[in-house]
Amino acid sequence: MNKPERIDKTDATDQVMHAIGERARAAAHVLALAPTQAKNAALSAAADALRKSTPEILSANARDVAAAKEAGRPDAFVDRLLLDGARVAAIAKGLEEIAELPDPVGTILAEWTRPNGLKFQRVRVPLGVIGIIYESRPNVTADAGALALKAGNAAILRGGSESHNSAQAIHACLIEGLKAVKLPEAAIQLVPTTDRAAVGHMLAGLDGAIDVIVPRGGKSLVERVQKEARVPVFAHLEGICHTYVDRDADLAMAVSVTLNAKMRRPGICGATETLLVDKGAPANVLPALVKALLDAGCEVRGDEAAQAADTRVKPATEADWATEYLDTIISMKVIDGVQGAIEHITKYGTQHTDAIITANAKTAEHFLAAVDSAIVLHNASTQFADGAEFGFGAEIGIATGKLHARGPVGVEQLTSFKYLVHGAGQIRPK
Amino acid sequence: MNKPERIDKTDATDQVMHAIGERARAAAHVLALAPTQAKNAALSAAADALRKSTPEILSANARDVAAAKEAGRPDAFVDRLLLDGARVAAIAKGLEEIAELPDPVGTILAEWTRPNGLKFQRVRVPLGVIGIIYESRPNVTADAGALALKAGNAAILRGGSESHNSAQAIHACLIEGLKAVKLPEAAIQLVPTTDRAAVGHMLAGLDGAIDVIVPRGGKSLVERVQKEARVPVFAHLEGICHTYVDRDADLAMAVSVTLNAKMRRPGICGATETLLVDKGAPANVLPALVKALLDAGCEVRGDEAAQAADTRVKPATEADWATEYLDTIISMKVIDGVQGAIEHITKYGTQHTDAIITANAKTAEHFLAAVDSAIVLHNASTQFADGAEFGFGAEIGIATGKLHARGPVGVEQLTSFKYLVHGAGQIRPK
Repeated sequence: MNKPERIDKTDATDQVMHAIGERARAAAHVLALAPTQAKNAALSAAADALRKSTPEILSANARDVAAAKEAGRPDAFVDRLLLDGARVAAIAKGLEEIAELPDPVGTILAEWTRPNGLKFQRVRVPLGVIGIIYESRPNVTADAGALALKAGNAAILRGGSESHNSAQAIHACLIEGLKAVKLPEAAIQLVPTTDRAAVGHMLAGLDGAIDVIVPRGGKSLVERVQKEARVPVFAHLEGICHTYVDRDADLAMAVSVTLNAKMRRPGICGATETLLVDKGAPANVLPALVKALLDAGCEVRGDEAAQAADTRVKPATEADWATEYLDTIISMKVIDGVQGAIEHITKYGTQHTDAIITANAKTAEHFLAAVDSAIVLHNASTQFADGAEFGFGAEIGIATGKLHARGPVGVEQLTSFKYLVHGAGQIRPK
Repeated sequence: MNKPERIDKTDATDQVMHAIGERARAAAHVLALAPTQAKNAALSAAADALRKSTPEILSANARDVAAAKEAGRPDAFVDRLLLDGARVAAIAKGLEEIAELPDPVGTILAEWTRPNGLKFQRVRVPLGVIGIIYESRPNVTADAGALALKAGNAAILRGGSESHNSAQAIHACLIEGLKAVKLPEAAIQLVPTTDRAAVGHMLAGLDGAIDVIVPRGGKSLVERVQKEARVPVFAHLEGICHTYVDRDADLAMAVSVTLNAKMRRPGICGATETLLVDKGAPANVLPALVKALLDAGCEVRGDEAAQAADTRVKPATEADWATEYLDTIISMKVIDGVQGAIEHITKYGTQHTDAIITANAKTAEHFLAAVDSAIVLHNASTQFADGAEFGFGAEIGIATGKLHARGPVGVEQLTSFKYLVHGAGQIRPK
């Protein structure tokens, strides 16, 4: 019955998104040449605007929160959506921190001179236009827009429909910042429609206007983006991270690092999901690890050897090795040395983050070389898988692909490069 | 009627390609840890095998050439297909040159220590599995397989069906090289079927086995690959390269560089297709450029100003600005200074290679910053757009995408990286 109406809506979205792509591409040309000082000043002015507009932002957010509650959304969802004065202040501070990061654009990555006198430079340039698709977390509007801007890119932001009022209020402050320094307003665009077709247009690349898509959200969002995107995607689908306790591990360190790797924040992508223990480790290692985890309130699902260590250990099934719990649950397996650990991780890992605990430098070296993950740690917690902990400042996410951006995606990872060649009239012989 | 037969064939190709993907993935794990010396020795042994097997290669090639002639293929096609003793020797020498390049794997790209004592290293690792889809040029079998191997990757080669006998004979020599040093034979696989469905399987990524696709061939091949690939592609579709002669150009240099940029080899992707001349240049510049090109046998298609310079200049149409001639034809336009040149290149360029000729450093700097191409040259010929001229040794092609590999794709560009983090039991606070 309402078919004609839907067609109209789709047509309208099509036009809106096409225009957004064109404006983003035009803005990107200006941003690529924008001085560092202008980009930083825009971010500072946006931070000021956010602080000044806190009442408007909170009232927009209250409308989103009321609608989410009415729709019966779970508490965790509402909490992620909810803003208060402190959270707005933190968002403003985040913008200022991004302003303080070094500007990657123009950095000379390499330079050399050829025998014919041609001087080559490999120089960082912005990627161009970044599409960010995210769920109902209002802060992403500011964080993602600011990171893209700092790296000289135009951003097209498509937030969850349930945070649309909050996102609009925050976006207005970013625009104030851009206007204050006369940078194009199209540098950071918020998709104005909640029509889901808009996401499809972005995934198709908006007629070549979008250079890369960054999804921010749960597994189902990332899955859809990775499956449907016709442009490159910086993302990770799952972080099934492993900690391997080797026969040569210091026991106290193994216990402390494992507890932190699982329990500090069990819900982040860098949390350890599977603990691998060397069958060649001293007899007291396995029970000590099991007891520490159980006593800390973690459910342990183990193979037969782990179950034998404590009656509270539940049996692990094949599915457990392939599960990202994001919860206070860990799977645990006794394997045959570092080679067994590498084989298990190769089979079940998601190329995100994996760690070895050992005092044996040679064993560590082999593990670090053989494990094909974005981040491989020796004697440290997998919870360090985070751009801020790397010293990148803010990050837009963690990528597990092998192309371009791997690991934390910060300002530098939002750039490309080009070659500048300086000559004195050289022509190519032959 | 022959539907059942076709289904059988497709099923068979499906199985063959799936097995190739699995073997490549397994080989990639071994290659990632293979010592430099083993990879180099395999390449040298393959070069020896090529020289020793020259008679077999030439006889296989003769079968391909005879079939191509019988099929009425044009002379240029047959010439690209044809091998002789000298060409086989050049292929063997190419393998030895790749052996002599530095091994990128394991190179530390960056390292730093955080205040908590964690030591971070960003280290080059192979990409994994590279799929190369190419037309009937037998030498690509050796070149592409060797470059992939040197960077620690497994290669899946799918050559044009009309060079299949030649490719098989060359591939046998690569396998001899791998066997000589006990590297897995699956390190370099040649797709054994000429069924076109095999290409579709590769473009779909072989169930995640392929990390990147490199097409080597004409525009229609690259177009299909870019359109259908579900995995990243390193390629350029077209090289509509520009040379801009600024008002401050040295005239002799402008003439010499322009002639070389167009006429040295008009058929390569770095050949200049459009000459832009500053309307502020001295009156003798335009006629001198036109005359030099015409006298060298180049067809000139110009705007009104260019036509006024010489009666032999033909009128250019809108389509000329968007055409990659790959021939002794050039389009020519008078524009308004460096800004006019940048606007023309932004509108019609293909982000491949563009050059400015000027003695004014400030003008050059602006052009180099504003032109968004993989390679931007100052006072040098666009024909330098080539991995060997960059000092990369061999290249597998030139990429115009902004992600990961941009410009010439040599051994380094066939790698990724990972982060190694060295700790002493650090746990993440909070």
